[in-house]
Amino acid sequence: LQLETFPANFALIGQQFMQAFYATLQTNREQLANFYYDQAMLTYEGAQLMGKAAIMTKYRSLGFQHISMAITNADYQPVERGVLIAVNGQLRVDDATQPLPFTETFLLRSFGQSFAIVNHIFRLGVHNY
Amino acid sequence: LQLETFPANFALIGQQFMQAFYATLQTNREQLANFYYDQAMLTYEGAQLMGKAAIMTKYRSLGFQHISMAITNADYQPVERGVLIAVNGQLRVDDATQPLPFTETFLLRSFGQSFAIVNHIFRLGVHNY
Repeated sequence: LQLETFPANFALIGQQFMQAFYATLQTNREQLANFYYDQAMLTYEGAQLMGKAAIMTKYRSLGFQHISMAITNADYQPVERGVLIAVNGQLRVDDATQPLPFTETFLLRSFGQSFAIVNHIFRLGVHNY
Repeated sequence: LQLETFPANFALIGQQFMQAFYATLQTNREQLANFYYDQAMLTYEGAQLMGKAAIMTKYRSLGFQHISMAITNADYQPVERGVLIAVNGQLRVDDATQPLPFTETFLLRSFGQSFAIVNHIFRLGVHNY
């Protein structure tokens, strides 16, 4: 591992990326394609989706008109040529009165001067007690 | 990105690694040192710890004698020379009657024929509704 390949400003990169990602998810889901690498992977509630096209098909299939996301906490770590992000939050779709907890992980990779999601794992929270 | 650098058996690697990690966490915390790369990073409830020595100092400082972990779900994805793991579960320390939800993310990297944790993010869940 070469230290110089770790982005020094990883937290700022991660924060700005997530701010843009969640704003787009809440306002213009179709534009999420811009955030993913062509061969990105998304594991959505256990379903494995390979590639940007499959990921966008999944987003289009989600049966809600509107979603609002509230971030409880987000942690960032530098990785080789990238940023690892872990998010916990609550989401609310359409007219739901009860928010649902969610957790997701992103691995961003640098491509030249920009970053794109190469790995993404999403889970709704489970409350069984 | 070269496809051949992605481990084909990433799910098995991840499952076996996590099984060994949680077994060790529950029975012999001091041996967790064997799971981390020397320059690994751990973000524990927002506190950033750099390097295996700092991580082990953190584990030794945790104020419980026993911990039991129950995994609700674990997702695995291949990354370059590694495996990304996202876990949701519930934990119980000492005589606690109420389990606490937790979420954590691991990035494993291959070093020769073995894997070690290079990045680890841990959060206890938040229930504010």
